[in-house]
Amino acid sequence: MEGDAGRDLGCQKTMDGKVNEDSTQADIPPCCLKAGAFAPDPELEANCHATVVSGWFSEQRSSDDVAKQMYFNNPMWPGEVHSLAVEKILFKEKSDYQEVLVFEVLVVGGGDGGVLREISRHNSVELIDICEIDKMVIDVSRKFFPELAVGFEDSRVHLHVGDAVEFIRNIPEGKYDAIIVDSSDPVAGPAQELVERPFFEMLARALRPGGVLCNMAESMWLHTHLIQDMISVCQKIFKGSVHYAWTSVPTYPSGVIGYILCSTEGPPVDFRNPINPIEKLEGALDHHRELKFYNSQMHRAAFALPPFVRKEVKCLM
Amino acid sequence: MEGDAGRDLGCQKTMDGKVNEDSTQADIPPCCLKAGAFAPDPELEANCHATVVSGWFSEQRSSDDVAKQMYFNNPMWPGEVHSLAVEKILFKEKSDYQEVLVFEVLVVGGGDGGVLREISRHNSVELIDICEIDKMVIDVSRKFFPELAVGFEDSRVHLHVGDAVEFIRNIPEGKYDAIIVDSSDPVAGPAQELVERPFFEMLARALRPGGVLCNMAESMWLHTHLIQDMISVCQKIFKGSVHYAWTSVPTYPSGVIGYILCSTEGPPVDFRNPINPIEKLEGALDHHRELKFYNSQMHRAAFALPPFVRKEVKCLM
Repeated sequence: MEGDAGRDLGCQKTMDGKVNEDSTQADIPPCCLKAGAFAPDPELEANCHATVVSGWFSEQRSSDDVAKQMYFNNPMWPGEVHSLAVEKILFKEKSDYQEVLVFEVLVVGGGDGGVLREISRHNSVELIDICEIDKMVIDVSRKFFPELAVGFEDSRVHLHVGDAVEFIRNIPEGKYDAIIVDSSDPVAGPAQELVERPFFEMLARALRPGGVLCNMAESMWLHTHLIQDMISVCQKIFKGSVHYAWTSVPTYPSGVIGYILCSTEGPPVDFRNPINPIEKLEGALDHHRELKFYNSQMHRAAFALPPFVRKEVKCLM
Repeated sequence: MEGDAGRDLGCQKTMDGKVNEDSTQADIPPCCLKAGAFAPDPELEANCHATVVSGWFSEQRSSDDVAKQMYFNNPMWPGEVHSLAVEKILFKEKSDYQEVLVFEVLVVGGGDGGVLREISRHNSVELIDICEIDKMVIDVSRKFFPELAVGFEDSRVHLHVGDAVEFIRNIPEGKYDAIIVDSSDPVAGPAQELVERPFFEMLARALRPGGVLCNMAESMWLHTHLIQDMISVCQKIFKGSVHYAWTSVPTYPSGVIGYILCSTEGPPVDFRNPINPIEKLEGALDHHRELKFYNSQMHRAAFALPPFVRKEVKCLM
């Protein structure tokens, strides 16, 4: 479901309203484009590092005078910057939770509707709840990225604008078959709460026996200690199975993103071999949109782990 | 064999001789750290883009004043910069072919001995020729990266310093069982000759029937047109089989590198299922060095291709 992220690099949009021309000239305060379906504590949002300096969008500040300081200070990617050229800023506004920007070159996360769009391939799905704290992310996606936001048009989708932790707390036990968490990065950032035991306990409680969780889980190249922490917590809570998988995302630091896949105690789930191979989904024919990145081959390959990951993430089988 | 590239990011070396202190303060002329076993035409080297600006090493110029120009001008990665923090420059000198730099944070390619080191796991290998045009790459690797350069110490290794095209031209027909080409990027760059038909014809001629070629072949995210060109040429020349595979390399643009794997007409080669799984190599026990990235799982996963690659690289099976 992450597959379109990189391909959208070539996305060309026309300039449209609400443009802050000055923003190409100077530092813009910290922001986070990867606003997830489960969005963050606004007080911590200031720790999220993304900047536009003279036409380049970076996951860290890249202006010369802060480079040295950054090397020591940035908790997520010390010593590394990934920059994308930005020709025009199409949208820039401060929501209650974060600064939202739209570029002609952009990476977008769960709140944009892309995950919903992919779920809608599955005819077997009857209801899709999405909880997004920041309505501006949805509005911006609808305006600038209709190809992603089309996910919201599915009649099975029910949008809940609010805090995901609160939302999950109030869900009846065993309500869901599957939960997908697309949160931001946890180190000293807004999503810290979302990688701790109480949140995973709430997720497990909201799942039926044999229900599954897919949780974004960092880069194996950069953060095996965080992966270890998350898997260790999940293994205590999810008594069905816990797996780690990863895939290539060219616009993320180190070029990969990982996932933790868990199932609750109950009917066993074979994550490596889906019952319905993605190429044979009955809903896909009506979807009028070919898959660009994901197929059965790529699904299986996602579970291949280098020896160093198994060594550093000791709790992995 | 690429697996250590990213892991070497953390490599710490002490400062040592031949240091140009000024080089952290200003633009350094174009250089290329990925000097391969088959090295480039020096006249074209100026097109290779790598810069240090105020403590950051980038695959493209990232100083503000050239950002806009770069977006349009750089042929390999328009609109993208990947930067690594550089604390000290340990070595900087101009060889006959390129500017060679050693940082505390570094990516190194084939000329450093790393590929040799990995080949030496195979007891079945009797002779390893390496052709490197630029002796400075080897000297620098020996001095600063002894863990990679140890590959040169194997008594089966024969080093040839010279032009790979000339070297291959003079090789007796059918001499080699396998050839590994780790060249630089071809677009308007020094390695253009190495992606064209005459070079592949010479490589095929130097291989025995059923011999194999492994050739570095770009990123599937960025350059499917180049991959298409190379595979199309190879399919005309290599009548055994032609495959495309890829793997994650966090320090390369877009986070991946691809390979073309070809075999000449003769005994069939099953690239996906090696006769000797890497975990069972008899030479590995004597190697005193665990594999960090490569294993049988990762080998198989390398052949999984997203639908967009099969669509854009039309000649792929």
